[in-house]
Amino acid sequence: MSRAAPLHDDSAPPWDDTVAALAEAFARTATARDAQGGHAAHERALLRDSGLLGLSTPSELGGLGADWHATLGVVRRFARVDSSLAHLFAFHHLLLATTRLFGQPGQWQPWYADSIRHRWFWGNALNPLDTQTRATFDAHGRAWIDGRKSFCSGATGSDMLLVSALDPDDRLLIGVVPTARAGIVTLDDWDNMGQRQTDSGTVTFAHVPVEPAEWLRDPGPLSTPFACLRPLLAQLILANLYLGIGEGALQEARAITQRAERPWIASAAARPREDPYVLAHFGDFWLALEGARALADAAARAFDRAWARGTALTAAERGTVAIAIAAAKVAATRASLDVTHRMFEVTGARSTTAGLRLDRYWRNARVHTLHDPVDYKVRELGDWALNDLPPKPSFYS
Amino acid sequence: MSRAAPLHDDSAPPWDDTVAALAEAFARTATARDAQGGHAAHERALLRDSGLLGLSTPSELGGLGADWHATLGVVRRFARVDSSLAHLFAFHHLLLATTRLFGQPGQWQPWYADSIRHRWFWGNALNPLDTQTRATFDAHGRAWIDGRKSFCSGATGSDMLLVSALDPDDRLLIGVVPTARAGIVTLDDWDNMGQRQTDSGTVTFAHVPVEPAEWLRDPGPLSTPFACLRPLLAQLILANLYLGIGEGALQEARAITQRAERPWIASAAARPREDPYVLAHFGDFWLALEGARALADAAARAFDRAWARGTALTAAERGTVAIAIAAAKVAATRASLDVTHRMFEVTGARSTTAGLRLDRYWRNARVHTLHDPVDYKVRELGDWALNDLPPKPSFYS
Amino acid sequence: MSRAAPLHDDSAPPWDDTVAALAEAFARTATARDAQGGHAAHERALLRDSGLLGLSTPSELGGLGADWHATLGVVRRFARVDSSLAHLFAFHHLLLATTRLFGQPGQWQPWYADSIRHRWFWGNALNPLDTQTRATFDAHGRAWIDGRKSFCSGATGSDMLLVSALDPDDRLLIGVVPTARAGIVTLDDWDNMGQRQTDSGTVTFAHVPVEPAEWLRDPGPLSTPFACLRPLLAQLILANLYLGIGEGALQEARAITQRAERPWIASAAARPREDPYVLAHFGDFWLALEGARALADAAARAFDRAWARGTALTAAERGTVAIAIAAAKVAATRASLDVTHRMFEVTGARSTTAGLRLDRYWRNARVHTLHDPVDYKVRELGDWALNDLPPKPSFYS
Amino acid sequence: MSRAAPLHDDSAPPWDDTVAALAEAFARTATARDAQGGHAAHERALLRDSGLLGLSTPSELGGLGADWHATLGVVRRFARVDSSLAHLFAFHHLLLATTRLFGQPGQWQPWYADSIRHRWFWGNALNPLDTQTRATFDAHGRAWIDGRKSFCSGATGSDMLLVSALDPDDRLLIGVVPTARAGIVTLDDWDNMGQRQTDSGTVTFAHVPVEPAEWLRDPGPLSTPFACLRPLLAQLILANLYLGIGEGALQEARAITQRAERPWIASAAARPREDPYVLAHFGDFWLALEGARALADAAARAFDRAWARGTALTAAERGTVAIAIAAAKVAATRASLDVTHRMFEVTGARSTTAGLRLDRYWRNARVHTLHDPVDYKVRELGDWALNDLPPKPSFYS
Repeated sequence: MSRAAPLHDDSAPPWDDTVAALAEAFARTATARDAQGGHAAHERALLRDSGLLGLSTPSELGGLGADWHATLGVVRRFARVDSSLAHLFAFHHLLLATTRLFGQPGQWQPWYADSIRHRWFWGNALNPLDTQTRATFDAHGRAWIDGRKSFCSGATGSDMLLVSALDPDDRLLIGVVPTARAGIVTLDDWDNMGQRQTDSGTVTFAHVPVEPAEWLRDPGPLSTPFACLRPLLAQLILANLYLGIGEGALQEARAITQRAERPWIASAAARPREDPYVLAHFGDFWLALEGARALADAAARAFDRAWARGTALTAAERGTVAIAIAAAKVAATRASLDVTHRMFEVTGARSTTAGLRLDRYWRNARVHTLHDPVDYKVRELGDWALNDLPPKPSFYS
Repeated sequence: MSRAAPLHDDSAPPWDDTVAALAEAFARTATARDAQGGHAAHERALLRDSGLLGLSTPSELGGLGADWHATLGVVRRFARVDSSLAHLFAFHHLLLATTRLFGQPGQWQPWYADSIRHRWFWGNALNPLDTQTRATFDAHGRAWIDGRKSFCSGATGSDMLLVSALDPDDRLLIGVVPTARAGIVTLDDWDNMGQRQTDSGTVTFAHVPVEPAEWLRDPGPLSTPFACLRPLLAQLILANLYLGIGEGALQEARAITQRAERPWIASAAARPREDPYVLAHFGDFWLALEGARALADAAARAFDRAWARGTALTAAERGTVAIAIAAAKVAATRASLDVTHRMFEVTGARSTTAGLRLDRYWRNARVHTLHDPVDYKVRELGDWALNDLPPKPSFYS
Repeated sequence: MSRAAPLHDDSAPPWDDTVAALAEAFARTATARDAQGGHAAHERALLRDSGLLGLSTPSELGGLGADWHATLGVVRRFARVDSSLAHLFAFHHLLLATTRLFGQPGQWQPWYADSIRHRWFWGNALNPLDTQTRATFDAHGRAWIDGRKSFCSGATGSDMLLVSALDPDDRLLIGVVPTARAGIVTLDDWDNMGQRQTDSGTVTFAHVPVEPAEWLRDPGPLSTPFACLRPLLAQLILANLYLGIGEGALQEARAITQRAERPWIASAAARPREDPYVLAHFGDFWLALEGARALADAAARAFDRAWARGTALTAAERGTVAIAIAAAKVAATRASLDVTHRMFEVTGARSTTAGLRLDRYWRNARVHTLHDPVDYKVRELGDWALNDLPPKPSFYS
Repeated sequence: MSRAAPLHDDSAPPWDDTVAALAEAFARTATARDAQGGHAAHERALLRDSGLLGLSTPSELGGLGADWHATLGVVRRFARVDSSLAHLFAFHHLLLATTRLFGQPGQWQPWYADSIRHRWFWGNALNPLDTQTRATFDAHGRAWIDGRKSFCSGATGSDMLLVSALDPDDRLLIGVVPTARAGIVTLDDWDNMGQRQTDSGTVTFAHVPVEPAEWLRDPGPLSTPFACLRPLLAQLILANLYLGIGEGALQEARAITQRAERPWIASAAARPREDPYVLAHFGDFWLALEGARALADAAARAFDRAWARGTALTAAERGTVAIAIAAAKVAATRASLDVTHRMFEVTGARSTTAGLRLDRYWRNARVHTLHDPVDYKVRELGDWALNDLPPKPSFYS
């Protein structure tokens, strides 16, 4: 994607060819799989086989040792061609990271290493707004989870699950369990207008045991500034997914417009690609994406610095990273929505034929940008700009 | 639709109950039929049975005698719940009107009367940008049409067709033929991301005879200011279709928001319907539609006055009507795109479930507003505002 | 102003020539007077001499008997060339109307008649948000006003003043007093970035007596649905002032662009008036104004109907008029701000020379549209669109 | 300016205190000088005395040796408080750089050194669109300039002038002459709605001799990719000026809002700084500026890299820098226009009092962003995004 690429690309990382080949493979079937929805078993197998599930895992634990800036670059690249798979891929890394941020080295290091060894794919059953899953404790301190959870992205087909539940005092507990554990059922009930292959269905829990060592209680969820990086990584992933969707849409609009021969009857241009209004739209699209890219790259570098600080990270430092990420997320939200919505004004009526499924960019961007309301993210930026207040840490800020 | 309705409704016309009942019937199955696509045989039969195909036909010819303002009101109302059927319904009236504008009373009066008598549904095979249909003439002056035509809205299932073809000198000819005439085949090949039941597929012509009396040659296409009302009626229909789509979207967003119980976690409001940002979005949506409504109503009244002038209509008068309609069309384009795109910011993530098919409003608006480029319609307004130049008559202006 | 005029002008009213002549006179010196600021004594004298101060006064009381739609048309026309004078002119009519809405026929009829007879100019000293003016009562029921009031548009140079004060129980009282009454001083302290000749300075009150018959207590301020038309008339006046400012800006941008010979070096156009981006801006400007005009005209007609209902007007009827006016006000706010802000993109760098004072359109629109926050006006529209709630009557709604 | 500052400030450069003190001094009188217009003799003397006129001059030639990123940071900082002085300061550096880009070391090195030694302030008399200055040559090869030039920023009060003239074959010549040379008159005829102290008046030339060594003929204007960096530096300066204006506006809006006690009557907030719509505006303002900052910083770093390449710079490399700068310029244009236009919606009606001259931010942004049309800059971005075409070098691209 020559033109939408950053102007100053660093030299290519070692996994670049693998990423390129996978993206190519995803692209070939993305349209058909969008039509079909459901579980992308084959593509998830390609991801496992590629070794890229270990991208963010430190090399001393057997991974590729990429920093977050690089990892998110891969997320964005996948999102250009298939934002469902990009989402699953990104959340896998987020879930692993969560064990590190909320747990002890004695917990996360083995999980990281085993994930490399067994090529585990992690799935999500953490949803802080969903209170339908409860944990009870027996006399031996063992917990049992019962209930159901919606929007569990990537649970189907996963090996390990990050699960949340409320304890009898309504406190949020987060734990790690194998997806295959008895009592856990992942339902294939995700059918949505966009992000159709994210497997974001329901998971049910029927008296599922959780060992004490499987809970992430020390330091626990959102307990320290460092632990509070978790929602920021989630938000930064979203920004890069949105950006990738927008870049993919621009890429396809560009290809269609370049091929178009016939300008509008009232246009003085010889071809659509020389029409002044077509050029104005492309200029706007490109600028919106370029601005969001600049913010997303800066935010990723700020996040990497904060990550490297580890538990020494202060709340104030975390606050500035939160703002950098919020800025990137809002810019990426707007850019992706705008490009996917207005791309049709350059591609024209014939590009709406069902076979192209060109609306999938908009459907994916539209659905995914609703993760949490952009209005309240803008308000966070305002509170910073006006009142010097950083976002209050939550699972969305 | 209490809130989106005009503030000063005139008293209800006699066909109001019929329209309401039909709209209700369309609404019940609109979601399912959007999923399915294809030909809406049942609903088209309901339209025939309702007598509303005679809405714009003068009462002296057996019709309901509605003026265009009233006819377009019905179009808009149908478009709120099903913009495909609204399109078919509106184009039926446009095609009848075309025979009047381009032909002689001896031609259109019998066609109007027969349409009432036999409950004919008219379909479109006129596409001035499609040059693949040619007419040749034999020694007896009889013409034969050969070729194919795309985007033939409503051809499938129609009784009468308005067809265009180029004669050997590349001049545009427009004629009227029964759809059942030998050599005409309507293909069910329309499969689009939106406006899925408009039957806008391909029609093929294999040596189809056309009688001299079936050609609209006197005064002929776009031959006089009065004849040049034809594209204006088409544009005005589009404006009302877009407006209806936007109104339907607002209506559904309203119902969903009214039912919603849980505000966003960072909101101080007790319910979503009291959230300041939710209210701001609804204010914006409503205002965009209300502004477009005001322009569309004014344009319809101007069109009715121009229609009543008949062949006395001057080019200058036609110019002012063209501008009024262009203004309404651009405003309706923008309003419908904006409301259908941003409605999700009030309805939220859960409203994207495939079952609701809430994206159909956007898909319908997005597809239909590409009929002709809005950029060039804005340019027409600019030429008027800056240079006092009315739009140059064409099939799109 | 040929192009920005409504498409379907009714025949000209009898005062049309007078209005045209005055507008012409105002236009000649508007630039110089914007530079100068202060009191426009000469132009206010022209207004008195013209008889137009009686425009909205019923003919049976000696006035011209124009309805509000016509009166506001004159306001808009003056605002095209001088929005300060238009404001003074409009508020004169508003203040007279206030006596009718809040008082008894025995009060307002003589005031109306005397205003015609003595060519009184009314000024404002009513400011419900300013609590610095108090009324005390002596044993004889006579009141005495002390304090100061800011933003008193038109007080300087006026003959009659509408004044507000808080009584000892903090209730709002509104009365009518001659400006010349002992104890009243109008300060010439208005110096603002826009609306520079509105005389909106401070008025001080030092033991100013007010007779019982001078208070508007029956029915009193905002006491009935009919009385609650007062803030709506104020809002509708603002909408028309904004619209006039926008129309004036477009008119001047048009004249400058028509004269311009040299297109931008990268433009393929022969002259600026043929440049595709210049035309797009003019199209946008014109459409924004045309949409606001349609809403403002509809709102004025709705207001006239409500006015004609008199005390029979219901709260629900008042609510629909309030919404029509709020819609017009928001649309006019946006249109006038947009046109006056962006007009420079067509007129170019040379048009910023101080001599043209072309920024006065923006300064006037910018200042005046802050009368009350547009955000909360949009919220009112949202509450109507979503919750069926009309605006709660206040001095701003 | 704590909140609007970049998140990751590098450590302060040695000239930081000097810059801060100067900015402080400029700020104290900026409002008064905006009212007054004309020549800022005192402030220009402060700039000379500060040594900052040598900021971009290499240390081996006696300057401070700042790179362009750092130099532009100072420009932006001055622009926050006084965009006229910032413009003069920035153009001084641009004019020096022009001698380097268009001339030979034997020319520019002495000029650089003398500029440090004599604290010269450079002024502009180069205006490629103004064809009123002609150069004629005598038999000895000496040239004589006659004519006049408009928009000569900083000519008044300067020591050295960069001048342009057309030779008898209409080729553009650019030379360097002392402002005091006989025959040169700088007129104080700049009176504009914004950027009021940029001394951008007319310069007249009456038979002014120019020595062969004073012409920049080798390599000459826009002759090589490296020479073609000149317009890019000019564009990048503009981007930073616009950004500074926007940042200054936000800073002042912030201060006013923080002090405000009374929320709007319909607001549920305790103070304006907690109002949801006020926060939304600040979030939007901040994000627009932050996005433009990210692009401007990236562009400055790309420009520094290109500058360091010297004559080895290729046209393709220059093209990517041109695009980075165009992106920054468009984003800064939009951000500064938006913030300065809409800031009043948070500061409210009382902030429009003439004493604050709060409109100066808008007037400065509005005037300066007209330097060359943003529409055609967006078109350049579109040609890059769609057609892979970099901007064609000119004095504006």
